[in-house]
Amino acid sequence: MCQLLGMNANTPTDVMFSFTGLATRAAEHKDGFGIAFFEDKGLRLFIDPHSALDSPVADMVRRYPIKSRNVIAHIRKATQGHVALENCHPFVRELWGRYWVFAHNGDLKDFAPRLHGAFRPVGSTDSERAFCWLMQELAKSHAGVPSVDELSRTLRDLLPLLHARGSFNMLLSNGQALWAHAATHLHWLQRRHPFRTATLADEDLSVDFGALTTPQDRVAVVATQPLTTGEAWEPIAPGELKVFVEGSALP
Amino acid sequence: MCQLLGMNANTPTDVMFSFTGLATRAAEHKDGFGIAFFEDKGLRLFIDPHSALDSPVADMVRRYPIKSRNVIAHIRKATQGHVALENCHPFVRELWGRYWVFAHNGDLKDFAPRLHGAFRPVGSTDSERAFCWLMQELAKSHAGVPSVDELSRTLRDLLPLLHARGSFNMLLSNGQALWAHAATHLHWLQRRHPFRTATLADEDLSVDFGALTTPQDRVAVVATQPLTTGEAWEPIAPGELKVFVEGSALP
Repeated sequence: MCQLLGMNANTPTDVMFSFTGLATRAAEHKDGFGIAFFEDKGLRLFIDPHSALDSPVADMVRRYPIKSRNVIAHIRKATQGHVALENCHPFVRELWGRYWVFAHNGDLKDFAPRLHGAFRPVGSTDSERAFCWLMQELAKSHAGVPSVDELSRTLRDLLPLLHARGSFNMLLSNGQALWAHAATHLHWLQRRHPFRTATLADEDLSVDFGALTTPQDRVAVVATQPLTTGEAWEPIAPGELKVFVEGSALP
Repeated sequence: MCQLLGMNANTPTDVMFSFTGLATRAAEHKDGFGIAFFEDKGLRLFIDPHSALDSPVADMVRRYPIKSRNVIAHIRKATQGHVALENCHPFVRELWGRYWVFAHNGDLKDFAPRLHGAFRPVGSTDSERAFCWLMQELAKSHAGVPSVDELSRTLRDLLPLLHARGSFNMLLSNGQALWAHAATHLHWLQRRHPFRTATLADEDLSVDFGALTTPQDRVAVVATQPLTTGEAWEPIAPGELKVFVEGSALP
């Protein structure tokens, strides 16, 4: 199994604190890591088949305050697919002139969908197969980038088909929204005014978000397990899709 | 205009020396940089809309000896498309379960091809439009990944159509080969046994490749302008496509 981290904000926000929290869990999730940052329509993707604890790429990410409104990160413990760069999440494809980023935690048993469209896996994971199938079905359902609401409706049709095939905790973003689907473990919280100090659950590190933010800032964070103590993390129910826009969960 | 760097080798090779040489030219090519490394079918892509001289990402690339058999790098001086992450080369798409990496130096005037297939530009450069068109036409010409020879034949049909529209110096790789098309300036050399010491043209830095290589190693390097002094760089003729496999130019 793996661990996921997602961030959606209404203003470009750095994710160094949360990524540090995720990386401390890399001791048992040592088969690679990846993190993708949207900057408007542009995307930075950093992946490494080494542990986030000792990867020079992860070290740069922890020290370089890249600011983004949509981030997806993943640390990997291989279940299907060997340890290799092409099997590191997140995966990226282009559709309708936008990049789409996907990361998965879980296991889809014997999932071999018919991929007859323009999306094929490069690596050998069940996760990338599921992503290619999802992109193929999205491409069939809309002629161009639909609204976030329309996309969410289409995803609510498609995701139960994957949920039925095994464990499918997923984060997906196109830079406009963050979609989070839970199967077993996925938690989220919103940080907003008045901001407080947060302390990482696994490491003796605190950040006073009040000193770093303005009263208008809204940030939603999604993670496999709560990353901090003393904050109100909420579980996402199995089978539920939560949609985050501008740092808030849509009703 | 921009500057290109490509590397194709028969054994995983680091490109730190050549990338350092390219980065010293970033003073006048300050509108972004990018570098893509294949590791088998997997791909690492590092891009930054900042100059390769002061980007923390470029700094990491210069210090982290990532070994690859196919590398494409680019430093950008914006001509078409504003300075933004989505306009940084190289660009990446997936086709037939392989990543394709593309970088361009030049200017295509009023190039607005009909993009009716599965590849759309995310940014606003003529270069990404040309890449999407090239991917679309390749996808039409073959049902799956063809041999390097077949691909080269198809590219020799398609590239004159782009060459006719302006200045089209291009590097393309799918991890199996490096294709280099020249319009104005593109040079290449092969390093092989007996390896010598090479000195960067722009910086007081030398490397004794003899100490770092085995007699079987073959490395082809392609660059807009020769990066070193005292080595036999050869110009690629305008309109010529050179194909590099396993560190050697195909006849």
